[in-house]
Amino acid sequence: MAECLIAGVGFHPFGKFPDRSLKDLGAVAVLEAVRDAEMPLADIETAYVGNSYAGLTTGQESVRGQVILRHVGLSGIPIINVENACASGATALHQAAMAVRSGMVDTVLVLGVEKLFVGDTKKSIRALSTSTDVETMGDRGMQFTALYAMKARETMETHGISIQSMARVAVKNSRNGSLNPIAQFRKPQTIASVLSSRVISEPLTLLMCSSIADGAAAAILTSKRKARRAGVSKPVYIRGCGLRSGEYQRRDGLTERNSVRAAANKAYEDAAAGPDDLDLLEVHDAAAPSEIGHLESLGISPVEQGYRGLVAGRYDLEGELPVNPSGGLLSRGHPTGATGVAQVGEIVLQLRGEAGKRQVRNGHSIRAGLCLNTGGRVEDDRAAIAVTVLSL
Amino acid sequence: MAECLIAGVGFHPFGKFPDRSLKDLGAVAVLEAVRDAEMPLADIETAYVGNSYAGLTTGQESVRGQVILRHVGLSGIPIINVENACASGATALHQAAMAVRSGMVDTVLVLGVEKLFVGDTKKSIRALSTSTDVETMGDRGMQFTALYAMKARETMETHGISIQSMARVAVKNSRNGSLNPIAQFRKPQTIASVLSSRVISEPLTLLMCSSIADGAAAAILTSKRKARRAGVSKPVYIRGCGLRSGEYQRRDGLTERNSVRAAANKAYEDAAAGPDDLDLLEVHDAAAPSEIGHLESLGISPVEQGYRGLVAGRYDLEGELPVNPSGGLLSRGHPTGATGVAQVGEIVLQLRGEAGKRQVRNGHSIRAGLCLNTGGRVEDDRAAIAVTVLSL
Repeated sequence: MAECLIAGVGFHPFGKFPDRSLKDLGAVAVLEAVRDAEMPLADIETAYVGNSYAGLTTGQESVRGQVILRHVGLSGIPIINVENACASGATALHQAAMAVRSGMVDTVLVLGVEKLFVGDTKKSIRALSTSTDVETMGDRGMQFTALYAMKARETMETHGISIQSMARVAVKNSRNGSLNPIAQFRKPQTIASVLSSRVISEPLTLLMCSSIADGAAAAILTSKRKARRAGVSKPVYIRGCGLRSGEYQRRDGLTERNSVRAAANKAYEDAAAGPDDLDLLEVHDAAAPSEIGHLESLGISPVEQGYRGLVAGRYDLEGELPVNPSGGLLSRGHPTGATGVAQVGEIVLQLRGEAGKRQVRNGHSIRAGLCLNTGGRVEDDRAAIAVTVLSL
Repeated sequence: MAECLIAGVGFHPFGKFPDRSLKDLGAVAVLEAVRDAEMPLADIETAYVGNSYAGLTTGQESVRGQVILRHVGLSGIPIINVENACASGATALHQAAMAVRSGMVDTVLVLGVEKLFVGDTKKSIRALSTSTDVETMGDRGMQFTALYAMKARETMETHGISIQSMARVAVKNSRNGSLNPIAQFRKPQTIASVLSSRVISEPLTLLMCSSIADGAAAAILTSKRKARRAGVSKPVYIRGCGLRSGEYQRRDGLTERNSVRAAANKAYEDAAAGPDDLDLLEVHDAAAPSEIGHLESLGISPVEQGYRGLVAGRYDLEGELPVNPSGGLLSRGHPTGATGVAQVGEIVLQLRGEAGKRQVRNGHSIRAGLCLNTGGRVEDDRAAIAVTVLSL
């Protein structure tokens, strides 16, 4: 199997850009990734484009990848549009990594892009609500935030975690986001400001929930062979990919009910690595407590220990295991289809020591990171979980 | 590279099914494919689902594959939703083939599914019109049929082809469709009936244009190694895949303006085969004259010779090179996302000698076939072209 590395990454800032179209957002990220990789656009042999809701928010369904990439002059290659709710970006990246690892192509572009600010918030919320079985759940008002709130309440009761502790996730991520030039929200928050923001779904407040955003992130993946020929100077390797839809796994009679754990185990196995090998993480903090919950599933720390670590600063930029140095979904923002690629882009910058003011541990001894990107829910199944392990 | 074969195929009939949901359509095809493969559902390690417009026609955007497959009890595996306009099905199939050929998995499900009859034809037409750049072309009334009509007019003038000759494609395909139990239209037509049906876009009449449909098709792909262990009795191999978006190809300074030819050349190269090795074809006859135009791009026969062959019966079921034995898009029908998988399914049945009354050449000396599935248009670029070469 060919080794696959990331030669370059690019972003369009996350936030509200009423004057920018899906094409504008995507083009900026793609051209920046190409520049960063120091490879010509013509080296790109295939492109995977992850987007979740453009058909419903902008009317551009179907061939959005082709529309965006034509805009930057990329044509005459296979372009594959991939959709997996909020995990569309990482799903596209995993497909691209498979293409390179298979040896069938050398260089592949991945673009994650989303346009959610279209002057009609209800329309955007309605689009987001299609990340479930619309026949059985779509009309029940069971927005994802409500599910996160129920889970938060359960965590509070089962583990004796306070809402103040949960708010600390938002505080930490707001501090990180304040140092990230592409972040949507750059104001550092306090426990008091987080808890006094308006309630979205009891006990979760506005600043504990990810918001809607426009944005894009891109990556150029290539084979080790090609990277050597092209003189790629800052390679970061994709070591392991785990993708999973749904909780049930009937193969070999095994059932793993925790799909995040299942996807992580697959990625760890693929990478021949484990939680102890990681130096930093980008995890899907769609709601503040999700971050710490995910750490348990990823084999990092059980929930109670996770919150103790949070309070002790373990996941801060200067901590033992920085989590969401980018600001995460809460502060960098969550333009759904872009998120999974942006997470990977953040790990790439951090491993290269190019993360500026939010550089973890001043770049010393940072060798490996992990991204967790999740999306959607069908009945009691998570719809898509993607875990990616990267290292120098 | 592992060899990839098709172990089983399944279909939901194409047509108008007002009482069947996207889930119903998909479930029927998947379960039939699993039965046909004689492999347990639990052997499926990954699934690719091709669908073009459900978000706009049914409201089920985003995680449609998960919603459908959960309905048949398939969960806990990676599910990847793929979109490439009318070529979504073949694009999904190519991704699945890559997964198997890479050696990373053995058994992969491909489902192509579409629900276009939703009680509001305008809504369906509007959904179809998103297979272009909606900002620049979406509002110009430039429906695909208008583009096909312009191309037909050009062919008539450049090559001296009569509209009667073009109508013969529809006549042939209606005869084939009349023998296909899954076909949407099963009434054999004559040149007179084709030409006297109402004009859609001069010179194309209703019976020379593909229509909207509901439907689904599925295939179980597996590795040769796994097939041997599982005792797969009727393997058909995927020998070559060529996927391309857009006419331009700037690599190595080469420019191939004909993207169908480019995709075909890639598939031929992949299969180490050429047009002369083919015994039958399923090609994307979205409009009647497209069929003969595509034969030129595929390297089968220049346009004028193509029409002479058509008149001489060369592409009939009993002819030297049967084309669209299924009835094609014109008669089997065109539930967009399902079409590419259904084309492959037809070739599989034909190569296995199981195509019933429409079996070409009574199944004698039929060893290899090709499918051409196309989708969308962005400016003057075709958005997706997928060519697949299959053989025993």
